[in-house]
Amino acid sequence: MQALTLDKLLSYRNDISIPDLATGEALIELRLAGICATDLELVKGYAGFSGILGHEFVGTVTAVADDKHRDWLNRRVVGSINIGCNVCEVCRRDGPEHCLHRKVLGIRGKDGVFADYFSLPVANLYTVPEAVPDQAAVFTEPLAAALRVVKQIAALPITDIAVVGPGRLGLLIAKVLSLAGYRVTVLGRSAASLALPKQWQLATGLITDIADNRFDCVVDASGQAAGFAQALRIVKPRGTLVLKSTFAGNAALDLSKVVVYEINIIGSRCGPFADALALLAENKLPVETMIDGQYQLQDGLAAFEHAAQAGVRKILLQPAKPHEPCR
Amino acid sequence: MQALTLDKLLSYRNDISIPDLATGEALIELRLAGICATDLELVKGYAGFSGILGHEFVGTVTAVADDKHRDWLNRRVVGSINIGCNVCEVCRRDGPEHCLHRKVLGIRGKDGVFADYFSLPVANLYTVPEAVPDQAAVFTEPLAAALRVVKQIAALPITDIAVVGPGRLGLLIAKVLSLAGYRVTVLGRSAASLALPKQWQLATGLITDIADNRFDCVVDASGQAAGFAQALRIVKPRGTLVLKSTFAGNAALDLSKVVVYEINIIGSRCGPFADALALLAENKLPVETMIDGQYQLQDGLAAFEHAAQAGVRKILLQPAKPHEPCR
Repeated sequence: MQALTLDKLLSYRNDISIPDLATGEALIELRLAGICATDLELVKGYAGFSGILGHEFVGTVTAVADDKHRDWLNRRVVGSINIGCNVCEVCRRDGPEHCLHRKVLGIRGKDGVFADYFSLPVANLYTVPEAVPDQAAVFTEPLAAALRVVKQIAALPITDIAVVGPGRLGLLIAKVLSLAGYRVTVLGRSAASLALPKQWQLATGLITDIADNRFDCVVDASGQAAGFAQALRIVKPRGTLVLKSTFAGNAALDLSKVVVYEINIIGSRCGPFADALALLAENKLPVETMIDGQYQLQDGLAAFEHAAQAGVRKILLQPAKPHEPCR
Repeated sequence: MQALTLDKLLSYRNDISIPDLATGEALIELRLAGICATDLELVKGYAGFSGILGHEFVGTVTAVADDKHRDWLNRRVVGSINIGCNVCEVCRRDGPEHCLHRKVLGIRGKDGVFADYFSLPVANLYTVPEAVPDQAAVFTEPLAAALRVVKQIAALPITDIAVVGPGRLGLLIAKVLSLAGYRVTVLGRSAASLALPKQWQLATGLITDIADNRFDCVVDASGQAAGFAQALRIVKPRGTLVLKSTFAGNAALDLSKVVVYEINIIGSRCGPFADALALLAENKLPVETMIDGQYQLQDGLAAFEHAAQAGVRKILLQPAKPHEPCR
């Protein structure tokens, strides 16, 4: 089969074996995949991953390792990306997302989805409702990550929220926070980057125009140390800063405001797939407007180049031929 | 009167006028003052303060600006250090600690206590119980700051806590957390630094001996970027990191664990004076064992040199003559 593999360099190959299934796993045929900021970081060497890249997908189950999972066959699915050990204290208490021994689809110890076929435990799969087209379903994983923010701040006294970074993830976060009833402003560094947030009916602003200590809560989805510094600058005393994206290690940061004004920083990662699919089924977010391009796997290198360009939000990958609609 | 003043350089002067009182203020005669890590930072230029240094004190009220405050005269007092505008949203909601327009005793816009006399609003004062000697009362401010940590983590599912940094503040934090029922370990970089924590009946360890992801909660009281990095290293997934001390601005930090393991960072500053005095009155903490030296104001420069030495916990300052016991 064909696949995009990372071994220091990203390569397109068409000589890869279809993966063998471990107990509990399903074999999934790719329908559509998304390139995420993490994929771009992995190609730069972040986390030292080697193998098949990719973790945002919608696909069709074509085989299962266990007979008891036969009813998953032919289903159109998305899947959560963490595969925990299921034994440790963290797995038992919090689930697989934070297991220290976990594998992560296309990120850590587990081949990913930029391939004709890939495997994942059935326990990670979610059936995609018929009302959700592939081009929306492929956003389930980042939308779930966005919904995680809503859950983490639910108990806090927050009205005004700024989302720093109007990219893929920032836009999803801003929209779900807006749907949850918060007063949300999307902040970017250029007017051009704010056009799509405006189209999504979100309030916008240039980050440099914002006064210090302005927002109850600031979500940093900028993926840059400079964005984090701005987020810290504009959060109110005793406010909340949600750190949603990582940036290159060992950035020069000044955390003295965190102490002096008792800022609460909340790290935020993966979220609830079922809730994300429900939102997509209700057609609450025009996610397809974030798609800037769709490439075949064999053009994967060009797709990555496109995804790395400034201002590009989402580039999709598909197998060679478009898929027939699935039951 | 005599005073230790900072104007880029720290100086001892004996030509300073006794301060005039503003409405609501009391004039306080110094009995005993403590040199804090913040004072050492201020001398290095942190926050750009100029004026009389000092904010940890016990003193005697010798005058009041308003007749209605006459019953404060001759009382032995300690005092909280933040003087808010009392008008802004932050003051009304949270009190003066986080007011953006606040003055801070000996730190920001308000002369401090390393002087024969100083002024403070009566609203900031607390009467010291008779059972608490001056050499314990002078620890009220840092003990209150330590108690703030207990309050901030009270609602979280925490059992095991590490305190990184066995200095003045770290020791107080560890002890109050231990008294609050947590399983506490004090971590330092050398065996010598752990002798006093052991004498205080606290579990101790060398930070470099601690495995990754070990504690539910880690309090960083190290005052160093390297201490923060260690604290982040040893906190469990979804754990809590309390940031209690600042370090030089723009340190190189890697916050990726905060996102990937959803760490919660809580900035922590000033705390409840009344609770601190109550603990001191019950004689629950052998705070006097932290005193490494006591100097007269006129020897203040030598006192600062002593306080800046590695391993020194608390250096006190007193006026020229020892005070008579106060009613």
